[in-house]
Amino acid sequence: MAKVAVLGAGSWGTALSIVLADNQHEVRLWTHRTEQAKKINQTRRNDQYLDAVIPEAITAYSDLKQAIAGVTAVVFVVPTKAIREVARQVDPLISPETTIIHASKGIEPVTLKRVSQMIGEELTAFKEEEIVVLSGPSHAEEVALRQPTTVTVSSVDPDRARLTQDLFINESFRVYTSPDVLGIELGGALKNIIALGAGISDGLGYGDNAKAALMTRGLAEIARLGTSLGANPLSFLGLPGVGDLIVTCTSVHSRNWRAGNLLGKGNKLEDVLEQMGMVVEGVRTVKAAYQFAKEQQVEMPITEGIYQVLFEGKQPKDVVGQLMSRNKRQEMDDLAQLLMERYSQ
Amino acid sequence: MAKVAVLGAGSWGTALSIVLADNQHEVRLWTHRTEQAKKINQTRRNDQYLDAVIPEAITAYSDLKQAIAGVTAVVFVVPTKAIREVARQVDPLISPETTIIHASKGIEPVTLKRVSQMIGEELTAFKEEEIVVLSGPSHAEEVALRQPTTVTVSSVDPDRARLTQDLFINESFRVYTSPDVLGIELGGALKNIIALGAGISDGLGYGDNAKAALMTRGLAEIARLGTSLGANPLSFLGLPGVGDLIVTCTSVHSRNWRAGNLLGKGNKLEDVLEQMGMVVEGVRTVKAAYQFAKEQQVEMPITEGIYQVLFEGKQPKDVVGQLMSRNKRQEMDDLAQLLMERYSQ
Repeated sequence: MAKVAVLGAGSWGTALSIVLADNQHEVRLWTHRTEQAKKINQTRRNDQYLDAVIPEAITAYSDLKQAIAGVTAVVFVVPTKAIREVARQVDPLISPETTIIHASKGIEPVTLKRVSQMIGEELTAFKEEEIVVLSGPSHAEEVALRQPTTVTVSSVDPDRARLTQDLFINESFRVYTSPDVLGIELGGALKNIIALGAGISDGLGYGDNAKAALMTRGLAEIARLGTSLGANPLSFLGLPGVGDLIVTCTSVHSRNWRAGNLLGKGNKLEDVLEQMGMVVEGVRTVKAAYQFAKEQQVEMPITEGIYQVLFEGKQPKDVVGQLMSRNKRQEMDDLAQLLMERYSQ
Repeated sequence: MAKVAVLGAGSWGTALSIVLADNQHEVRLWTHRTEQAKKINQTRRNDQYLDAVIPEAITAYSDLKQAIAGVTAVVFVVPTKAIREVARQVDPLISPETTIIHASKGIEPVTLKRVSQMIGEELTAFKEEEIVVLSGPSHAEEVALRQPTTVTVSSVDPDRARLTQDLFINESFRVYTSPDVLGIELGGALKNIIALGAGISDGLGYGDNAKAALMTRGLAEIARLGTSLGANPLSFLGLPGVGDLIVTCTSVHSRNWRAGNLLGKGNKLEDVLEQMGMVVEGVRTVKAAYQFAKEQQVEMPITEGIYQVLFEGKQPKDVVGQLMSRNKRQEMDDLAQLLMERYSQ
């Protein structure tokens, strides 16, 4: 039994708190909204975010200092754009022995930083390499129902990865470890590009063949970019890569898929974003990946096509035509090349 | 413009004939049923199998000799269990210059032979290595609608692979090439095991998390077996691997998914097969893979679990429990090992 603070009481933070409570840990679920904390403690519900009973082992806090006092681990589950601000508040309160975990997906615009980099930069006593990432194919609603779910935790420090695995693992929540933080974080962020593309394909009225092709070639493309940035290409074949891609591209609940679907039906980006009324992480990620690809000179025809639809007013149908009429080529030749370069040294 | 014979007038054979006709080739679509051939030629429809107009460039034949006289290529699209018989009939009629292509998925029970091996054994003038395979994520109905579709053609002989690519490629049907016949054929066959598993998971009432986990870990598992048999692990990440896996596991039209779904709901195998009234390729493939895995000493926990459900009366729920409670481990360690061994020589 450990004391763990979970920062962020949205659907995923609440679901992860339930997993920890099931494992007999004392959980402090922090939200910056006093009202929400009060309501959770009084009603044992957090209905706005998750349809589930909140176990007694979870106590909600709106005071960050109280929430993280004496805990073994802190889990960041706030939106990417709030990461730095919350980390700055955590900084003076945290002991260097604490294990810092995050379960947020995204890339910071302009700086192109990953979440562990942002946290590492804001926490004085921690290096980027000491942050643990938790990622995988996981709808929060299903985790709350204790349905079988698998995730991967990753850290450069194997002890911290194992500690995180031990905190979360149970019979309905299986936790694997990986040393490739970069690959795990990039996979989680970049897959949102392909989810947008899958939505566009469905919105155009295309079928399963087109979507499967897009997902397969898209996976190769994000693996290519990730590898050029230093990730292990194999990470894109694991739970936080292809697994998360499958869940995101085939679920109508995915925000990125829904935005893509509206674009495929002929709506303009401004209208889609207004209609959605919330952040669509994939739109920001397309911009970041497009910029990365230019810098790294990596060929990303699908990302480029989606970029043209989003920001250059190109018709989705024309982009598909353009993708289908590229030169005849071998499948996998470039990914094979990457792997050979990696493993033949 | 070439003359091409397509053997087998089911939905996939008919769809591939339409692609060839769109590319201005003269197509001879062979069926052993005289009535069906007559009907196709008279009505320009093959409604029992595919809802599409049959272009004038396609002529149906029930006489095999007439169908293959003077053709550049012969495409086998008959069910796996009819492959040897049809190949034996073709043998005395075929010229050694003809390119032999097949688009059938499966493994022969008992002998554990792949389709190209079966054809190679029956055709006197051809070696197994000369047969070309065509495979990928492709519902025939969508191909007939000219919706975007991608496939891979594979042959040890690059000239024959390129000839096949040239025959089929057009703006809605994109064709990649690969030299790894073994990987392409094994991917197409083994993915049916995972489709059965995905159906079982859905039948048990589990959600997207469980299915994505099963597909991801299942992919690693069939890649492991394929690699131990000599395939390139990268083939399992391509269109005929992960692409076909996605289409098969997420489509309720998939026969294997439907059989699994009925099993997950508590039906017995005999009842499921009776209810389906047709061959479920995945059931035979589970047996073959289970046997392969024992011989090759490859760990395949998902295949083994499905085998226990199919043939040893184990409850699906117990198998899931067993899979979720395996030892804590690193993700991808064994697949990484395989790749390292392959590429570090």
